[in-house]
Amino acid sequence: MVEKEVCELLAGRQYKKIKEAFAQMNEVDLADLLEQLPEKEMVMAFRLIGKEEAAETFSYMEPKQQQILVEALTERELSEVLDEMFLDDAADVLEEMPANVVERILARTDPETRRQLNQLLSYPEDSVGSIMTVEYVDLKPRMTVKEALEKIRRVGIDSETIYTCYVIQNKKLLGIVTARALLISHEDTVIEDIMESNIIKVNTYDDQEEAAKLVRKYGLIALPVVDKEGCMVGIVTVDDAMEVMQDENTEDMTLMAAIQPSESTYFGTSVLRHARNRIPWLLVLMFSATFTGMIITKYETAFAAIPLLVSFIPMIMDTSGNCGSQSATLIICGMAVDEIRLRDVFKVVWKEIRVAMAVSTTLAVANGARILIMYHDMKLALLIGLTLVCTVTLAELIGCMLPMLAKRCRLDPAIMASPLITTCVDAAAIAIYFFIATKLFSL
Amino acid sequence: MVEKEVCELLAGRQYKKIKEAFAQMNEVDLADLLEQLPEKEMVMAFRLIGKEEAAETFSYMEPKQQQILVEALTERELSEVLDEMFLDDAADVLEEMPANVVERILARTDPETRRQLNQLLSYPEDSVGSIMTVEYVDLKPRMTVKEALEKIRRVGIDSETIYTCYVIQNKKLLGIVTARALLISHEDTVIEDIMESNIIKVNTYDDQEEAAKLVRKYGLIALPVVDKEGCMVGIVTVDDAMEVMQDENTEDMTLMAAIQPSESTYFGTSVLRHARNRIPWLLVLMFSATFTGMIITKYETAFAAIPLLVSFIPMIMDTSGNCGSQSATLIICGMAVDEIRLRDVFKVVWKEIRVAMAVSTTLAVANGARILIMYHDMKLALLIGLTLVCTVTLAELIGCMLPMLAKRCRLDPAIMASPLITTCVDAAAIAIYFFIATKLFSL
Repeated sequence: MVEKEVCELLAGRQYKKIKEAFAQMNEVDLADLLEQLPEKEMVMAFRLIGKEEAAETFSYMEPKQQQILVEALTERELSEVLDEMFLDDAADVLEEMPANVVERILARTDPETRRQLNQLLSYPEDSVGSIMTVEYVDLKPRMTVKEALEKIRRVGIDSETIYTCYVIQNKKLLGIVTARALLISHEDTVIEDIMESNIIKVNTYDDQEEAAKLVRKYGLIALPVVDKEGCMVGIVTVDDAMEVMQDENTEDMTLMAAIQPSESTYFGTSVLRHARNRIPWLLVLMFSATFTGMIITKYETAFAAIPLLVSFIPMIMDTSGNCGSQSATLIICGMAVDEIRLRDVFKVVWKEIRVAMAVSTTLAVANGARILIMYHDMKLALLIGLTLVCTVTLAELIGCMLPMLAKRCRLDPAIMASPLITTCVDAAAIAIYFFIATKLFSL
Repeated sequence: MVEKEVCELLAGRQYKKIKEAFAQMNEVDLADLLEQLPEKEMVMAFRLIGKEEAAETFSYMEPKQQQILVEALTERELSEVLDEMFLDDAADVLEEMPANVVERILARTDPETRRQLNQLLSYPEDSVGSIMTVEYVDLKPRMTVKEALEKIRRVGIDSETIYTCYVIQNKKLLGIVTARALLISHEDTVIEDIMESNIIKVNTYDDQEEAAKLVRKYGLIALPVVDKEGCMVGIVTVDDAMEVMQDENTEDMTLMAAIQPSESTYFGTSVLRHARNRIPWLLVLMFSATFTGMIITKYETAFAAIPLLVSFIPMIMDTSGNCGSQSATLIICGMAVDEIRLRDVFKVVWKEIRVAMAVSTTLAVANGARILIMYHDMKLALLIGLTLVCTVTLAELIGCMLPMLAKRCRLDPAIMASPLITTCVDAAAIAIYFFIATKLFSL
């Protein structure tokens, strides 16, 4: 079903046909479809989705569309949708809404839900608390497998995941039992005897990236979350962990391109917002580059004597910049998957020195040969070759050390990528180039 | 437990203590620990791991260590480990081993397993087939819930995931039943009645990235895989999908830094291999940059008359390069999550034109003002301002179009990132700069 068909059926009041078609669709696709519709049609179409599917569809929509719906729905419809939603999804919705809408929604919920929603809303933006689910299956250590399965049947319908159950006593997490263990165990077995007590867990105030990393590393379906007293408060499910991973990757890439990361999508961001995200770093980098220009000005007499010297500036700047960003990127990626740690700094430097030797010699020989052939000038070939060896080595060292320095200062290593390194390396490369040139040509 | 303790206990022959400590550890951590040990100790320690845990630990180790173990273990030990492993993990191990080791291993397996392993090994490297699991729970449409649960109990122990069961008739996939649906349904219910027949699936020869995207988009725990006849052949589990996502992200980042992507880790790659991965693009970019140099040579008389012109070259090159890589990165990220499609090209261009107007004017005014204050030269300020407006706009257009062009040509858009764009944009920027300069100063 495409948006045009929906509009036509709506215009023809063929609601039953739409209902039937919607019932066949996956909620993710349904949300995609609704977002393509004009405002009025979207609200009409949303009302034709089955009760249970409506809540899930709603949670997959973009904040802008959600707000349109919140404003168009009656209080009764709204609370039906919110009651069906998982609490963490509801909290995500509320986070994006203006204050008056949040009030309107909270007023409709019962006191216990309101308390939980407020708690979820109070966690810092990038914390585990802000992505966790508070619905999970808790068991007692002395229960039998039969009792556990009955409990899952009773409460499981409302739990975002029932595949990992948590054994809890006095609010403390004692162990984990998978649905698989329950299914393959005899029904009289006591939970205590089949639970896994070696538990991987996170704290509500840990970085959500940390949780996503643990889920990936240990191949988990859900990760338990405890508060600072060690009491179980929720779980992070694998689907949320995947979203975090994707968001963090996009954030790293945008940071590496000197853009302020933004939560919204490309088309969802206004032109002005795009400009505002890109301008700050551009200004910083632009003014830093004038420093390189000042170094050039110092050697005015040199290139007045040999104007050809100027024509090598772009090649030297680009090559050293590229080498620097190559090492920086490899280190940033290595640190992102915890392969490279801060204590490996000497190992990294030693490796990069050797790589730089191989890379710089190759580039120097290739370019030296080219110059010898094109200009038949041994001295010029030597100048370019020597400059490349020095600048490439320096660039790779700066490139590998800056991201580690950033991490040491508790900054995101990704900000130390290409653009910043290029600017640092440029100035050094130009200084080295003209220094060698003046010596070689006695300028 | 750290590696030093293990070595001491091994030296003191306190095997029981080690066994007990290992039994408490997670297999992922155990693999990490073993990898830190010297070769001989690693083999000794591996033999102290419990039978079931040994296979899983083995699958988490690096190919290099796996090979050491394969060579050190007796045939009997080896087949015990492989029998316990999931077939897809075993295939991954075999892929990394030299031919004689593969033969030795395959000789130990029964004909059916050997056939399945050979089939898994035959799929192309980045295809869904190469990451799928062939073990899953299949049900018949006319089974009852009770029979289904019994079947899970019987075969479930060996299946990588039992949380999604597949309803199959004549090898064709009819529907999906979650373990959750089974748990909350009455035991006499017929599977047909509770199965979901709107199935999201992939083909064995699809790109594994496609599978990972579907798992993320629809929040799945497993995704069914069918062959070209539409017969069910396996599943892709969410943990494998997460690995694919992480690998693809790392690959994109390295491509964007002009490095040939490699399968191994930073430290796992030799110095020579590192150099070989980095040199090709560096050479291409280095020689392309000489093109920019040639443009500069054309304007020798211009900067002979006004040497100050040379000092702005780095700033203009860097700024336009940065703007280009900003748009390119946003487009690459947008395409990676399927937000930006090829048909959006005009929407993207129109957006980037407006962003470029805002960005370039801001940069031009800021830098023009600085020059006016520093040099009291209106013409120079005008030159830099005009150049920035033209080059920034051009850079953002090239930056947004090249990745889309790459996608159109079925290349990875990530290769069109910073370094390549910088080089393209540099030449254009320098040409524009000197063209405006000669006109303004009538050189």
